[in-house]
Amino acid sequence: MSLDKIIEEIRSLESKLHEKDFLLTWEQSPEELKQVLLVAEALRTLRDENISTKVFDSGLGVSLFRDNSTRTRFSYASACNMLGLAIQDLDEGKSQIAHGETTRETANMISFCADVIGIRDDMYLGHGNKYMREVAEALDFGKENEVLSQRPAMVNLQCDVDHPTQSMADLAWLKEHFGSLEELKGKKIAMTWAYSPSYGKPLSVPQGIIGLMTRFGMDVTLAHPEGYDLIPEVVETAKKNAEASGGSFTQVSTMEEAFQDADIVYPKSWAPYQVMGERTELLYANDQEGLKALEKKCLEQNAQHKDWHCTEEMMKLTKEGEALYMHCLPADITGVSCEEGEVTEGVFNKYLVDTYKEAGWKPFIIAAMIFSRKFADPAAALEALLERAKRRVEV
Amino acid sequence: MSLDKIIEEIRSLESKLHEKDFLLTWEQSPEELKQVLLVAEALRTLRDENISTKVFDSGLGVSLFRDNSTRTRFSYASACNMLGLAIQDLDEGKSQIAHGETTRETANMISFCADVIGIRDDMYLGHGNKYMREVAEALDFGKENEVLSQRPAMVNLQCDVDHPTQSMADLAWLKEHFGSLEELKGKKIAMTWAYSPSYGKPLSVPQGIIGLMTRFGMDVTLAHPEGYDLIPEVVETAKKNAEASGGSFTQVSTMEEAFQDADIVYPKSWAPYQVMGERTELLYANDQEGLKALEKKCLEQNAQHKDWHCTEEMMKLTKEGEALYMHCLPADITGVSCEEGEVTEGVFNKYLVDTYKEAGWKPFIIAAMIFSRKFADPAAALEALLERAKRRVEV
Amino acid sequence: MSLDKIIEEIRSLESKLHEKDFLLTWEQSPEELKQVLLVAEALRTLRDENISTKVFDSGLGVSLFRDNSTRTRFSYASACNMLGLAIQDLDEGKSQIAHGETTRETANMISFCADVIGIRDDMYLGHGNKYMREVAEALDFGKENEVLSQRPAMVNLQCDVDHPTQSMADLAWLKEHFGSLEELKGKKIAMTWAYSPSYGKPLSVPQGIIGLMTRFGMDVTLAHPEGYDLIPEVVETAKKNAEASGGSFTQVSTMEEAFQDADIVYPKSWAPYQVMGERTELLYANDQEGLKALEKKCLEQNAQHKDWHCTEEMMKLTKEGEALYMHCLPADITGVSCEEGEVTEGVFNKYLVDTYKEAGWKPFIIAAMIFSRKFADPAAALEALLERAKRRVEV
Repeated sequence: MSLDKIIEEIRSLESKLHEKDFLLTWEQSPEELKQVLLVAEALRTLRDENISTKVFDSGLGVSLFRDNSTRTRFSYASACNMLGLAIQDLDEGKSQIAHGETTRETANMISFCADVIGIRDDMYLGHGNKYMREVAEALDFGKENEVLSQRPAMVNLQCDVDHPTQSMADLAWLKEHFGSLEELKGKKIAMTWAYSPSYGKPLSVPQGIIGLMTRFGMDVTLAHPEGYDLIPEVVETAKKNAEASGGSFTQVSTMEEAFQDADIVYPKSWAPYQVMGERTELLYANDQEGLKALEKKCLEQNAQHKDWHCTEEMMKLTKEGEALYMHCLPADITGVSCEEGEVTEGVFNKYLVDTYKEAGWKPFIIAAMIFSRKFADPAAALEALLERAKRRVEV
Repeated sequence: MSLDKIIEEIRSLESKLHEKDFLLTWEQSPEELKQVLLVAEALRTLRDENISTKVFDSGLGVSLFRDNSTRTRFSYASACNMLGLAIQDLDEGKSQIAHGETTRETANMISFCADVIGIRDDMYLGHGNKYMREVAEALDFGKENEVLSQRPAMVNLQCDVDHPTQSMADLAWLKEHFGSLEELKGKKIAMTWAYSPSYGKPLSVPQGIIGLMTRFGMDVTLAHPEGYDLIPEVVETAKKNAEASGGSFTQVSTMEEAFQDADIVYPKSWAPYQVMGERTELLYANDQEGLKALEKKCLEQNAQHKDWHCTEEMMKLTKEGEALYMHCLPADITGVSCEEGEVTEGVFNKYLVDTYKEAGWKPFIIAAMIFSRKFADPAAALEALLERAKRRVEV
Repeated sequence: MSLDKIIEEIRSLESKLHEKDFLLTWEQSPEELKQVLLVAEALRTLRDENISTKVFDSGLGVSLFRDNSTRTRFSYASACNMLGLAIQDLDEGKSQIAHGETTRETANMISFCADVIGIRDDMYLGHGNKYMREVAEALDFGKENEVLSQRPAMVNLQCDVDHPTQSMADLAWLKEHFGSLEELKGKKIAMTWAYSPSYGKPLSVPQGIIGLMTRFGMDVTLAHPEGYDLIPEVVETAKKNAEASGGSFTQVSTMEEAFQDADIVYPKSWAPYQVMGERTELLYANDQEGLKALEKKCLEQNAQHKDWHCTEEMMKLTKEGEALYMHCLPADITGVSCEEGEVTEGVFNKYLVDTYKEAGWKPFIIAAMIFSRKFADPAAALEALLERAKRRVEV
């Protein structure tokens, strides 16, 4: 799509993103989600045409990672950089937060010159998203009381409930791959559990997928072994979404059923919801013995489901044997990154470039979230960039 | 005050800050201190009016933190960013400094493209400020010998003697709160010790306060339990300052006396001067047993002074019961961050927004220190920014 | 040399650096090496004249340090910054790389918005350079498959084989010191081992020196105690280089012979090639006992060669007793950084400013490598900067 068209389409949308943080995709209207996709496309096109997307001359993009990250860390850094913000990481180990500082205080202290705060907090079930809301409230408080001269945007870089930068990047990729959002209507996507020799993987990716893909008329099928439940409220949300969008949400109990005639498959390991709850309590109690025992139990439980394996055979069940394989990466690839894992090397390699392209949307999606939060009239802001036409790289 | 007025006032001041690092407030003339306050106000006003304050197109702001930090780290990062410098942190653990490298060498090696170096070194009594001067001399040496094409500015981000970015931010806040520096004349400020269930807090905040506030005709009262002395030379400096500025410096032995009729109170824990000296030796000797024993002794000693507690009752003693409460944050708040601490939740919450605003000056104070060191004619440099009027955020 | 002259000379060179990563100096033609030197001089001159060298409006410079670093880290940060790139460090400890991610995947995931990737990987003999080539191939793959919209430049920030940013900075310094590359012809440079009370120092510096200095008609002499061999292939390369350039390459077995009539001396400790191989295996096996035993054995072996010491007496053997002393820093200075080391305090201090100036070229050399990789017509790009003449620091 040409930039002019993209900008025109953005202008036609009704959106209140300017006033909202991006914490859960299901808190945003379809028009708002579309806006983020379109702004991401616009920023990507501008960059590909060597046109600068810097809308900030200076300013900080604060990050707080409470879990390891490569992809999201680099995506966030890229997003901030392309908009003109410098990254300042809040390393809780090197800060005075251990001194009993309140969330309200920390949030304000790091935000005097911050235009955006991105947080990853995905280990603690029932806490991550809550923490983000506490930070958001603290920022509102700071702005209202003239402590902060600007209210930084908040971006959820993965919490216990949702992983919106991932699921929106996935959606951007599906839109690119299939040609349009319209084309996704009626397509079957199988979000399925898969075996992995690790435990404790967050629920936010599968939850994010069923929470978002049900918004656009897709037929979303969720499958996992007994006991590997997701957070019940999110499953409820997916059901309601499907109803509202004219799609469907189905739960089945085998990978085979889920893959049957699927247009898209997303096989990925996660820990049972109940386990994540137990684990959260043990982590808070710093109960190392308990954590070890839990890990042992879970790995044994996982090992009973090694047949949840995305093999060539399994792929043959999909639509014409050619469903699109998706993954948030890194995947546990049998014989490559582990002995037995989520997917065979053959299947993974066939779709390797696809999964890389899927990941490639993330920097632009994050930038679009920030952009949409910061500019009341994003179409005008993009047009201004296009008119200015400053080269990103001098040639 | 309007920007034009601020710039006019800056132009009227005699200042040699252009040639001096900012290591101790009492090494700067009153006019130089005023200049820093005014430049901070100017930068803040420009930013609030969405006018870019970038005076560097590129360049590095080096930081070296030998102690934990949130506020100062983010303030320094914000200051560098608003002027156009990128942060490069010297993490001594990841460097080759352990290989026996000299201070002269390290200082030059990190400065080939550095425009400013900010150092926090507050743990070692008798060493922190000395180290900064060694670095400053090494930078002079590098410039003189054409190793460095520019002499980076040095900013003291807290040492064993002073915490000038804190005390100057505190002064900027008092100026804002009371309306002008003139208004501070004759106001009573009580810098008092307060109980905290921790030990080893640096002396630089109380020392910075008595060293700076005595410069502007304030009535400064210092109070602490017996044995909790500050560095004697700094106390002497405060006395002389008070005499020269027409204010007063008084030492009393109870919090009650100090609070009596105070316009401003600053209750905060610190470790006795003698203890910091002992601790420094133990730290250098890496004597873990000795450190534990010292901590135990000190905590017991502290515990005898739990009545040094900033309560509602205590606040009633102050001028009309309405003194301004100040703190460098994070405070040890009774029932919030600890069981028994420096201040009650009620008092802290009443002044919470005030303390946040106090902290909010720090990025601008640091930026002003750098600006003043770098530009011989800061008024002209600010005027140039105003004329250029580049938007910070494109809208 | 004036900027116009430098640019003219760059224009006259035939270079394919635009299409090549900078991994080993002996993979580049003499014209390409000259180009890097000239671009470095041009960038340095521009900066000294307060003209901005920012050719990127935004973009990331990714760094990956698999060993400690101060000089190279800051030089790389400075280089990226002067070109307009923000640093994003890949900290493998904080990433998901431990999860068994492939090099191909990591390389692509960090490069969506990266313009350059700099890697230090010097600990593992037989692996460092190989790893860089794997990353380079992965980036080619990403570009070909439209995963990446731009192919980041790769810069070798020290590997097991070469340390091109060091040796090229050394060469730039020699060019400055002696006036021109022409002047280096026939000059004798002694690259010699020297005693140090540490072990396991990489071979890349001596290898880099003999691999590069033999390209410009110098008489390169290598000396080390028996058993302290360099990688045989690199020694072969040095021989062939010397032949092709009309210089010479000689190996002798004492420091005295090497210093005899030398114009330049470069005494520096390194670990024997065979030891580095053994050590690599032990590191991979995480054999702590084995590593300790190896260290003990090596330190004992080293201790037999304490007479490899760059003393005043030794310096008297050099050309008129006034050879230029070089070191990549930090040096092991007897009585300063260790009891007995590579060089006496007297000799080191006499050349201290020289070694600092030597180091000062590194940021510009790295920037020149990036610049040369990114711009097909570097002369035109430099001319554009000169014409634009944006001030680096507003005055």
